[in-house]
Amino acid sequence: MIAWCLATSFAVCAAGWSQSSSEDPKISIEHVLRTQQGAWNRHDLDAFMQGYWNSPELTFFSGAKEFKGWQAALDRYRASYASPGHEMGNLEFSDLRVEILSPDSAFVRGVWQVTMPDGKKPHGRFTLVFRKLPEGWKIIHDHTSAAE
Amino acid sequence: MIAWCLATSFAVCAAGWSQSSSEDPKISIEHVLRTQQGAWNRHDLDAFMQGYWNSPELTFFSGAKEFKGWQAALDRYRASYASPGHEMGNLEFSDLRVEILSPDSAFVRGVWQVTMPDGKKPHGRFTLVFRKLPEGWKIIHDHTSAAE
Repeated sequence: MIAWCLATSFAVCAAGWSQSSSEDPKISIEHVLRTQQGAWNRHDLDAFMQGYWNSPELTFFSGAKEFKGWQAALDRYRASYASPGHEMGNLEFSDLRVEILSPDSAFVRGVWQVTMPDGKKPHGRFTLVFRKLPEGWKIIHDHTSAAE
Repeated sequence: MIAWCLATSFAVCAAGWSQSSSEDPKISIEHVLRTQQGAWNRHDLDAFMQGYWNSPELTFFSGAKEFKGWQAALDRYRASYASPGHEMGNLEFSDLRVEILSPDSAFVRGVWQVTMPDGKKPHGRFTLVFRKLPEGWKIIHDHTSAAE
């Protein structure tokens, strides 16, 4: 009986959470970003990349450069953070501001900081454009800039 | 009679142009950007600023910095381009990609370059989020980054 109660309560909670998360776009989008942060900090770049639209139309701006397509974005992350002489460190997002633009579009303003093993802390700001696709809310454009 | 014909033709053309421009959000948004470029190149910063939402909620990201509000954005432009030792130069936008997200929201990806009197050409990329407000399409968020 106790096991049944616990199982039922858990199922009701889980259903409620899942429903509210799928119904509130802000929560869904924040969940994508928290999932990305967790993946980065496990040094799982493939899981991190799940937040992005897996399309050649994805765009990533950094400084004056454009990386066009999901593969180019992944290659940039690999070259900058997961190749010989580069480390992923510990990523933290802060000051996240999700603004819903329509039922299937939103943008996010935020701050990023990576704490490196040597104590360096590169940081900056980002703007993300999200669209709600059949596979869920995905980043379709990322503009990231770093402190000069 | 000729004067009447010319006047009527002009009125019909102007009405048609104004209608199509107000009906096609891409054309309206491109018009905001072309107007900004023209204002900059006349060194008319006040007219340039008309493209932005005149609100304390406007945000402007540059590098790791945020400038919050219309006045802060103007102050940043003044400090960087229209103060002793700084010049506005000649601004050129290129590679403009307007993407409509909903009837009242859109974002723009683009490239900027300023040609200075000394021949230097600072340049970079920008992401603009637009909303259609009662006063027209306005930039509500600007993320600008420069070549490193």
